[in-house]
Amino acid sequence: MNKERLIFVTNDDSFRAKGFAAAIEVAREFGRVVAVAPESVQSGKSQAITIYDPLFIESRHQSEGVEVYSLSGTPVDCAKFAFDHLFRGQRVDLVISGINHGSNAGTNVLYSGTMGAAIEGSFYGCPSVGLSLTDHDAEADFEAAKHYAREIISSIMENPASENLCLNVNVPNIPLSEIKGVRVCRQCRGIWLDEFAPMECEDQKQGYMISGAFSNHEPEAEDTDEWALANGYVSVVPVQIDMTHYKQMEYLERVLG
Amino acid sequence: MNKERLIFVTNDDSFRAKGFAAAIEVAREFGRVVAVAPESVQSGKSQAITIYDPLFIESRHQSEGVEVYSLSGTPVDCAKFAFDHLFRGQRVDLVISGINHGSNAGTNVLYSGTMGAAIEGSFYGCPSVGLSLTDHDAEADFEAAKHYAREIISSIMENPASENLCLNVNVPNIPLSEIKGVRVCRQCRGIWLDEFAPMECEDQKQGYMISGAFSNHEPEAEDTDEWALANGYVSVVPVQIDMTHYKQMEYLERVLG
Repeated sequence: MNKERLIFVTNDDSFRAKGFAAAIEVAREFGRVVAVAPESVQSGKSQAITIYDPLFIESRHQSEGVEVYSLSGTPVDCAKFAFDHLFRGQRVDLVISGINHGSNAGTNVLYSGTMGAAIEGSFYGCPSVGLSLTDHDAEADFEAAKHYAREIISSIMENPASENLCLNVNVPNIPLSEIKGVRVCRQCRGIWLDEFAPMECEDQKQGYMISGAFSNHEPEAEDTDEWALANGYVSVVPVQIDMTHYKQMEYLERVLG
Repeated sequence: MNKERLIFVTNDDSFRAKGFAAAIEVAREFGRVVAVAPESVQSGKSQAITIYDPLFIESRHQSEGVEVYSLSGTPVDCAKFAFDHLFRGQRVDLVISGINHGSNAGTNVLYSGTMGAAIEGSFYGCPSVGLSLTDHDAEADFEAAKHYAREIISSIMENPASENLCLNVNVPNIPLSEIKGVRVCRQCRGIWLDEFAPMECEDQKQGYMISGAFSNHEPEAEDTDEWALANGYVSVVPVQIDMTHYKQMEYLERVLG
């Protein structure tokens, strides 16, 4: 254990989540931990930031090498507050976001608060790992996820990437002994098909609750994260922050020129 | 004007914003308009969705070929509600998100609710255009932005792309006569450097308000959206929804293999 390292931990399920404790446990094996997680559940918050309201921070736990805070904002607020206010230029060696209760594979990466914070972390020039377990249960078993988190983090710390690294790691909800290993994947194509269920709310006002299911547009493709998870592997997708669709530039030059 | 076309309009500054009216005005020239915008300002909401609260919809305006609603959610909620509940499989020909009061160039694309909704719209297989003017003022002048919106939308409707198209269009805040034209660009690299200003809140509680400035990591590069805007051009960046960092896959195969 290298006590000199500084590891930042956050998540989107709030500082009370079992998966957050699991992430801190893994992080502690790699260095000193400062963790800032949302005060309330922030699932589906993507890269959202809080612009018009003040943020409140509260110390939740302090022990040897571990400081835990809650912040009244989004996962990305937590990352920004940590880097730009708490750390102020201190070197951070690793960001861990999670361990999320639920999958962030496929297009979930775009909606996920866990991945929003991981992406934000990678802006600051340190490797950043978003970790998710495909089980929404509050009492989910994180043993396999912790095992692979350790393995993957050890590998990227020992063999650093030459440029900003942000990983979207998803672990299937099966016993550790049944997991077949790690697969480097691409993001699966698909779309969430949503339903809006009518519900009667206060004052007989008509509200709508969203629910949905992911429709996989390429279930046969063996190089996607969804395929890896469905077939007993841990999926690892490297995530970029350049959203430019370079292949469409030529078409646009032609039609707009 | 082709009355058969169905155009969906949304934004992140709420249904009351001047830029939203400007977007509807442009959209109406291309077909029948159904507009669903957030009830309250949703700047910085990225691709966030509302999972745990019901959504409420309200009709705000109906006239020949134009229906306007407000929804108590995020920009992406508006898009999902429109496509999956209001339209239910009807063919939509175009999505316009904006016109945003403020720039969405560079890494803003990741935080922007305007672009979150535009990205969501492109999932549904129709061309999608996020429009922004680099002026935060509520009374900003949208004449130049409307002019270029018409021009760009005409071009992509007449010459459709062969696959999903999502554009991040930004218009500099200068008179129409001074704009030099349209440039197809890539997303500029940079980072928001944030400050958290302490403020005393209710019950003498210490709060922090975020503010920040975009730090351009490549101010000399002439192919970026930030350069285009700083030099009097309208920037057009094609946006992709596959976040996979393909170039890092080989490195990961090596270190995780």
